[in-house]
Amino acid sequence: MKIFIVTYPFVKNLKELINEYKPNYLIAVDSAVSFVYGENIPIDLAVGDFDTLKDKGILKTLNTIELNVMKDETDTEYAILEALKLKPDEIYLIGGIGGARIEHTYANLNYVKRYKKIKLITDESVISSYGIGTYEFNSNGYFSVFANTDSVISLKDFLYELDCYKLDQLSTIGISNEVKEKPAKLIVHAGEVLVIETKKDK
Amino acid sequence: MKIFIVTYPFVKNLKELINEYKPNYLIAVDSAVSFVYGENIPIDLAVGDFDTLKDKGILKTLNTIELNVMKDETDTEYAILEALKLKPDEIYLIGGIGGARIEHTYANLNYVKRYKKIKLITDESVISSYGIGTYEFNSNGYFSVFANTDSVISLKDFLYELDCYKLDQLSTIGISNEVKEKPAKLIVHAGEVLVIETKKDK
Repeated sequence: MKIFIVTYPFVKNLKELINEYKPNYLIAVDSAVSFVYGENIPIDLAVGDFDTLKDKGILKTLNTIELNVMKDETDTEYAILEALKLKPDEIYLIGGIGGARIEHTYANLNYVKRYKKIKLITDESVISSYGIGTYEFNSNGYFSVFANTDSVISLKDFLYELDCYKLDQLSTIGISNEVKEKPAKLIVHAGEVLVIETKKDK
Repeated sequence: MKIFIVTYPFVKNLKELINEYKPNYLIAVDSAVSFVYGENIPIDLAVGDFDTLKDKGILKTLNTIELNVMKDETDTEYAILEALKLKPDEIYLIGGIGGARIEHTYANLNYVKRYKKIKLITDESVISSYGIGTYEFNSNGYFSVFANTDSVISLKDFLYELDCYKLDQLSTIGISNEVKEKPAKLIVHAGEVLVIETKKDK
């Protein structure tokens, strides 16, 4: 089972992403209800305090969990916790990066680190965590790797290679790399890393 | 001594920030050279590989460090290391949040965690790290606190209060708080936190 969680700021190409990933279940977070509804895409669950939702009438037609404004979780984290109850194979957090409130971007990145099944997808980037193992990459854009916990990694067939490199949590040495020969390999020998793949401007 | 490091994405109100903080020294990073120059603001040092700078002629008139494109540090981190050589009291990283490349936003937040003297300032937010101690806040907008390392914190006179709360590195419980009574107090009993103060939409 694949779950989409659609959150603000919204992506431009939601329909394309649905065609590409074919989710079985879609959760719209707060103001995303209007957005998804406006795109004529079915919503399986609406989650939020809906303090930013203009047309609350939509909610009456939907399966809805209305949260208190005073709560410990953000609306998006609550949606993630609901998604996890369905024991999905994959959760895609769609959007959530780049609004005027950088703290929400920061929180959404934290969810990618905390809940391992999440891939965060925006118009520009795909962001995901990787534990110990070997992973192949074929992207044409920028490839950046940061350490979620102090890690040891190797990068093979990338423009900049690393061999059993100790990557500490605040290091930015892994930024702006590129696949040189497909597939390029990331080997996480120890720890856990965050990979950000970003498209290049045409 | 106060140093401004101006980086992409640029703020809208650089002149206002200069009037407010009165820096003694200004470093322009890469394409920020054109931006700062265009605002008729003096540049003390230009740092970058200048691969995104359109008018390279400007550089001839400036104190410039030209970096190799293939390098371990980002242009912005190199500028920070140059700034630190001047033993400043404060470094203000101006801009650097919210471009299409989320990996650069992420890296710039890492610098605020790694180099304790940095305050990152954008049009919307002020972002800074705080170690053990007591700090007062008077802002009217959103106040968010995240743990750089697992921390213990108290929040007094905020809308949502905490008392000796164990804040782990991926927790988002500290997001979207507000000062209730000025000055509100953040007490860091252990660890180190990242505070993001964001303006409210008018």
